Amino acid sequence: MPIQFRQHTLANQLTVIAEVNPDAHTAAIGFFVKAGARDETPEVMGVSHFLEHMMFKGTARRTAEDVNREFDELGANYNAYTSHEQTVYYAHVLPEFLPRATDLIGDMLRPALRTEDFDMEKNVILEEIGMYDDRPEWVLQDKLLEDYFRNEQGGDHPLGFRVLGTTDTIKALTADQMRAYFEHRYSPDNIVVAAAGRVNFEALVADVEQLCTDWPATGAVRDYAEPCPVEKADSVSDEKLSRHYLGMLCPAPSAQDDRRYAAKVLADVLGDHEGSRLYWSIIDPGLADEADFSFMPQDGTGAYLAYASCDPARAEQVETRLMEVLDAVVQAKDITEDEVMRTKNKLATQATLQGERPAGRMQALGVQWSYQGAYTPLDEELAKLMAVTVDDVHELLADFPFTPKTVLRLGPGVAV
Amino acid sequence: MPIQFRQHTLANQLTVIAEVNPDAHTAAIGFFVKAGARDETPEVMGVSHFLEHMMFKGTARRTAEDVNREFDELGANYNAYTSHEQTVYYAHVLPEFLPRATDLIGDMLRPALRTEDFDMEKNVILEEIGMYDDRPEWVLQDKLLEDYFRNEQGGDHPLGFRVLGTTDTIKALTADQMRAYFEHRYSPDNIVVAAAGRVNFEALVADVEQLCTDWPATGAVRDYAEPCPVEKADSVSDEKLSRHYLGMLCPAPSAQDDRRYAAKVLADVLGDHEGSRLYWSIIDPGLADEADFSFMPQDGTGAYLAYASCDPARAEQVETRLMEVLDAVVQAKDITEDEVMRTKNKLATQATLQGERPAGRMQALGVQWSYQGAYTPLDEELAKLMAVTVDDVHELLADFPFTPKTVLRLGPGVAV
Repeated sequence: MPIQFRQHTLANQLTVIAEVNPDAHTAAIGFFVKAGARDETPEVMGVSHFLEHMMFKGTARRTAEDVNREFDELGANYNAYTSHEQTVYYAHVLPEFLPRATDLIGDMLRPALRTEDFDMEKNVILEEIGMYDDRPEWVLQDKLLEDYFRNEQGGDHPLGFRVLGTTDTIKALTADQMRAYFEHRYSPDNIVVAAAGRVNFEALVADVEQLCTDWPATGAVRDYAEPCPVEKADSVSDEKLSRHYLGMLCPAPSAQDDRRYAAKVLADVLGDHEGSRLYWSIIDPGLADEADFSFMPQDGTGAYLAYASCDPARAEQVETRLMEVLDAVVQAKDITEDEVMRTKNKLATQATLQGERPAGRMQALGVQWSYQGAYTPLDEELAKLMAVTVDDVHELLADFPFTPKTVLRLGPGVAV
Repeated sequence: MPIQFRQHTLANQLTVIAEVNPDAHTAAIGFFVKAGARDETPEVMGVSHFLEHMMFKGTARRTAEDVNREFDELGANYNAYTSHEQTVYYAHVLPEFLPRATDLIGDMLRPALRTEDFDMEKNVILEEIGMYDDRPEWVLQDKLLEDYFRNEQGGDHPLGFRVLGTTDTIKALTADQMRAYFEHRYSPDNIVVAAAGRVNFEALVADVEQLCTDWPATGAVRDYAEPCPVEKADSVSDEKLSRHYLGMLCPAPSAQDDRRYAAKVLADVLGDHEGSRLYWSIIDPGLADEADFSFMPQDGTGAYLAYASCDPARAEQVETRLMEVLDAVVQAKDITEDEVMRTKNKLATQATLQGERPAGRMQALGVQWSYQGAYTPLDEELAKLMAVTVDDVHELLADFPFTPKTVLRLGPGVAV
């Protein structure tokens, strides 16, 4: 039986989509809420992520222990995550447990939000923030996003907010602020339910209908203000570190931009973990332990991210080489047919390998719908990728020539 | 068509095994070499891992660039890893690429080991060791294993060696030492080739035969000396750290011991990431950001590992609670039917979910064969797990009462 796409929208605008594969041995479901750090105000920074935690603390008809025990009973691979752009709750189960998993997650999304749980969970969030302090690569990323999105010229773009918030914003956050944020953004017209694998779609829609039909739509919208990154280099000295960390962000196509396929190919040619230009230039000779270049498509905007970590003694050499590799390709436009073909083959096969599990397809489906508001089968996605030519990549380089660059250096004794 | 297990041993003792599933959409293959840190001497500590890197540097008929490009052409999810007990090279591909993936990995395992590549790659290894210095959880683990396996009483058990080696051992290592280690341990009687998914077994055996038939068997054996852990607590103060890290190791059943199923259940009841006794005691109230208890079965021996990280101000409180949870269950033997049943259901479903991909089955198959020298179908493995009773867990607690405990504390201003 072929894979079939199904879609149904409830009266309150909640959308249910599924890629039904009767040959699959499992099923996966996810609730994708368009609520992330970028939908916050500076005052409540971190509320989306904190709220994700609170969803596991019980509902009108379940205690926190119930939620926990039921996931165990379903034997689910389940989790939730919060990014700058969304909060996602998901489970991967045997097909017979899909209705119970749906009921559990759907119920969780109308949480009790008890003040005593809120006060208690605040400690957990503060612990999580504390944990970051010993992770230099996370410290670098948070500060780099801040530098790129929040600057003199571009104002205060919320993609520069910290997903976890800061110790100050979390301490100051009140339960009422959280409730107000929840009521506005966990609106059915701001959520998509995505399923994949061996799914009975009619039964799924009936279950979701019963659970969610009373949720009131609020017309929550997202602010699509343009970020205004500037050319700048910032250095943070931290004598506690043993290694030097380098990050760089610059503009790239958005998740809705057709040039995103070329951007994916280009980023892989330049900065894939193995066999890329950065790999041969920096990793293979042992100059750094990591040197990556990746494409980060986002909702209405996009960026390239370069990252390296190395011995502090080689900080300058690694940064110079990395920038040379990037600038050289913008100047020379010398990407080869062979590079493009290898990368496309690799990306295409990997998409197929990853598409094998319903859990992978569910994630792809939910993210795709959140960004595009439409479904594209894996075959069509791959056809678009395989259609990328060397000329497409060179045109992309002309449109997005890795500038302006926001650079951040973090290490012991870094010159400021 | 049902899943079928196949096995063939070449004249030189190289074993080829496969779990053939004609309904799978992909295929996975791995070469499992019984060569890890525990098979080294103190002088060449780190040679197994260094050697793993050298396998990607080319052979008599392939350059390093060829190896890299061919993996790209196959679009493979491929990688290699080295642990204390084995070195594994694997690829996950579309079924039509399995013969080429087999040829590539098989050829890689007869590497050129050129001295100039060895000298160059040494820098990469030293970079990798340097990277560890900013990762306190890795620093903790390395030192904890050292404390547990290498002590006054137990002598110098090689399970306490560092997989990466140290800066000193790597700097001193010669290419000739590596060649000697390679020739002895990469012997066909010390390697198993495991495949899973849509595999043509006869063709696979023919390919492996052609590639590997000339490899000489050396009769490489492993030293199964018993470790002699002692009760001790070590504290390392590092003012560079923001968080406090706690680790504890104590004896548990080995990978060959039938009590391993009960040990898996017990560890999950006490220390699973969600919903375990440690979770409710330490994580839920926000005392620490992590508090886990896990079972580490190894070849001929085994250990339980406890791990926590928290605000340094709560170091003592977290350690006290963690030890109380462990000691209380040894004293009270109060594990409930409900806890055992929930955990078994969870582990069983997760095994099924993970078994869905050929890549997962290949790994399970290779590791199982390395430890047991025999094949057990997933169904049978699960039946053994599901047969675990509360009495089994309590008997296990009597046999392995979390003692002696080797404790390591790492943090700023830790009292020594």
